[in-house]
Parts: sequence; structure tokens; C-alpha cells
Amino acid sequence: MDDNHDIVTELPELDCWELLRQQEFGRLAFHLVNEVHIVPINYVVSGGRLVFRTAEGSKLLGITMNQDVAFEIDQYDEEHATSVVVRGTARELEGDEADRAEQLPLRPWVPTAKFSIVAIEPTEITGRRFRLDRPWSQMRPTA
Amino acid sequence: MDDNHDIVTELPELDCWELLRQQEFGRLAFHLVNEVHIVPINYVVSGGRLVFRTAEGSKLLGITMNQDVAFEIDQYDEEHATSVVVRGTARELEGDEADRAEQLPLRPWVPTAKFSIVAIEPTEITGRRFRLDRPWSQMRPTA
Repeated sequence: MDDNHDIVTELPELDCWELLRQQEFGRLAFHLVNEVHIVPINYVVSGGRLVFRTAEGSKLLGITMNQDVAFEIDQYDEEHATSVVVRGTARELEGDEADRAEQLPLRPWVPTAKFSIVAIEPTEITGRRFRLDRPWSQMRPTA
Repeated sequence: MDDNHDIVTELPELDCWELLRQQEFGRLAFHLVNEVHIVPINYVVSGGRLVFRTAEGSKLLGITMNQDVAFEIDQYDEEHATSVVVRGTARELEGDEADRAEQLPLRPWVPTAKFSIVAIEPTEITGRRFRLDRPWSQMRPTA
């Protein structure tokens, strides 16, 4: 990929954190026994972790059985797409940790009952900015 | 979740396909040995499958070792979020199949060399529409 420096740009980790703090909606990929699953979640950044609420269900079951997760946010406009991926371990917070997390500005978009609080501890954060080439979305003179 | 019928709506499979056809950007979750990974991809719907291009790399290695994948698209506005999740098996197309796929309107957003064509054969498609409750984004009288 050495020829693609101007097309794909790796983002410094600080920029990735900034993007993670700006957004509140991402996608969590997790193991459920032998399967990989993916769900949209609301999250908040707190103390270097990503925190989200969840009801009992496959997410909670999955991460209880296997903490390994990946999480992604992205955004794009006509010219660029940006994606940040966090790999890490997820675990349900309990006791004091859960109580403190209750104070976070963790605003559920969907007002259904959500009982558990889960934190993702990042082990790897990568971000990429892609220069898009979408000639069909905007006719331009030949480049 | 029986109380949430008006907040979370399951989408019929036909609606999920319609949304999948309307979009061209999603996220692929795949196994890489014991880890779960997630990456943004461009895709196209063709013959009941999702087709995308990829260069040699972790995606291709991952699905060669384990075909089990999950794929997600979503969109949201002030009032609703919609998410479609496809679970299925991914495999690299070869020979005639790959040649035919070359004819697809599979428009890479990012003009880097991409050599392989992968098809995801769905085993399960689920879609949900969420009614959002984001009082901080739009001040309203108390509901």
C-alpha cells in the first residue's frame, strides 16, 4: 500500500480519540460462541474507555463468554471518509464502577430499559482517512 | 422487549434488501484467528449476495480461515435510526464467477488497487428501526 499515501492516511491516535469523543453512535462487533455479530450502539468516552448500556441479550451474553470485541465509527462527505476502529476487551461494570458510570452523560437514544453498563478497554486504536473518488456522485473534468 | 413495539420496529426482509440496495457503504465484521475485526467496505447487492473488492490483507486472510461474517449498514436522522445486519458466509470468487462480478457496478470509492472479489451469502437478515429520543438535540416541551 506504499503507493497510496495520498489516498489513505493513517490518523494519529490523538485524532482518533477526538473523533471518538465527537460521536456517540458506533457499531460493536463481538463473538457469540462461534459466530461474529455486529450491532449499532450508543456510547460515551470516559477515562480512556468506551462505555455503553445494554439490556440482557446477545451482546451481554457474547461478551460474558468472550471479551474480545471490535468497535467502529465512521463519517463521510463527498470527498473523504474517516473510520476509527477500536479493538479491545469488553466487560460489564459492577458495584462502585457501575454506580460511577451512571453519572456519565450516557444518553440513550432509544428509551428502552437498559440495565447493564459495559466498558470497552482499548488494546488497539486505528484511524484512517480515505480520499474518495466517486465520479458518479459529482461529474468533474477528467482528473 | 414486548413493551418496546412502538420504539423498536423489526423491518420485513424485503425492506432490508431495499435498504441494502440503496446504500453502498457498510461495515464488515470478521474473524481473524481468535479475534473479531471490523472494517468499512464498499459493496453492491447482486443476485441475493453482497459483493465487494479487497486487496490482499487481513480481511481476505480472515475470511479464508473462517467464512463466518456479519455486515451492517445504518442511517439516522433526528427522529429515527435504521440498521440492517446481514449474517452469512464470505468467500472469494474465482474464475467465471469473478469474471462476471467484474461487470457489476462495484464502484470503489477509494482508487487503490483491489484484486480480489468476495461475495457474502446471507444466512440471516435482520433490520430494525429505532425511534430516537434525543432531547438534547432538539428542545421540546416535556413529553
